[in-house]
Amino acid sequence: MVDRVVPDVIVSRLPVYLRALQFMQMQAVTTTSSQDLGSKVNISAAQIRKDLSQFGEFGKQGTGYNVEALIAHLEKILQVEKVWDVAVIGMGDMGHALTRYGGFLNRGFRITDCFDNDPAKIGSQAGQYIIKDVADIGKGDCLRGKMVMLCVPAAAAQKIANKLVECGVKAILNYAPVHLSVPADVRVQYIDPVIGLQRMAYYLHEKNE
Amino acid sequence: MVDRVVPDVIVSRLPVYLRALQFMQMQAVTTTSSQDLGSKVNISAAQIRKDLSQFGEFGKQGTGYNVEALIAHLEKILQVEKVWDVAVIGMGDMGHALTRYGGFLNRGFRITDCFDNDPAKIGSQAGQYIIKDVADIGKGDCLRGKMVMLCVPAAAAQKIANKLVECGVKAILNYAPVHLSVPADVRVQYIDPVIGLQRMAYYLHEKNE
Repeated sequence: MVDRVVPDVIVSRLPVYLRALQFMQMQAVTTTSSQDLGSKVNISAAQIRKDLSQFGEFGKQGTGYNVEALIAHLEKILQVEKVWDVAVIGMGDMGHALTRYGGFLNRGFRITDCFDNDPAKIGSQAGQYIIKDVADIGKGDCLRGKMVMLCVPAAAAQKIANKLVECGVKAILNYAPVHLSVPADVRVQYIDPVIGLQRMAYYLHEKNE
Repeated sequence: MVDRVVPDVIVSRLPVYLRALQFMQMQAVTTTSSQDLGSKVNISAAQIRKDLSQFGEFGKQGTGYNVEALIAHLEKILQVEKVWDVAVIGMGDMGHALTRYGGFLNRGFRITDCFDNDPAKIGSQAGQYIIKDVADIGKGDCLRGKMVMLCVPAAAAQKIANKLVECGVKAILNYAPVHLSVPADVRVQYIDPVIGLQRMAYYLHEKNE
């Protein structure tokens, strides 16, 4: 049997479905349909059915999806029914905001370590965390198997990413406004508000003319 | 002549090219090629040439692109050679981090207003800003033509988005972890670190098996 590779564009939509379903669950909604879910994420019902069909049979014709069951399926597919350890590197405003964000644990992630290179910050407390020295990364393999949220300045990001790759980190959420070059087996996702703003500005321009 | 609509997927890549070019410029690089640029953003040279060809002729066969000139072209296409006014709504950790972020102005945006609904915050200072009352939005059209970064809790986001739409806001960068329903002429981009983490967790799972 051939290993079927699910296209990344489909994978990218699963967390969006999961988020919408969890929001329904919070509002005590117990069943949904591909139409209803689609209207909440701006994706067509047909696309949702097609995406989910990659992973098996969910829901029944006419009765729709059980919200709790579909959440459990998606969490299993995305492997977030377990909790992943995440390290924050760079304890500026963004790093601090992330350590205080309450929305990670119920969606599969927990921050376990914080790092900075500023001697004034190293050893100090950030909420429940003691800020560690970024120079100590790699000593004792402390980040192997963890995910990283990288919140350092653009000019420092690649050098630290290289170190993370050496340490066995396979997933980096990059807040630094710069592209990272990493080996093919390391995943990077980017978070840059300006990219989102610029992408929207293009369309505002069109409308103003 | 028919108005040619550029596919959104192409528009979405232009800010990524621009960011890489500006990073080159900071490093005093004056010329680049589609190969070189492509290696920095993990997009093929052919794709970059095809994307840019939607907007005219840039660069010359054999000599490549002048970095400064291509930056100017892309800024003009994205309409970020001007500076857009942006309001932050929700002055929690994320709102505060955004008001202190130094990377907006040189990329086409400036924060002009901050809002919250907490009486303890309204009227207080956040850096150079006085936090305004979110209930005052819409009085005097103060947000018409502005972009908004929405950093309120998920449960409050749709209600505020409705109000923004009424006020003439056409672009919302949504940090609340929930999908927003807005009219077709309003753009929304989403920033949710958990979506990025979950998308990567899917692949970590595959590798661990």
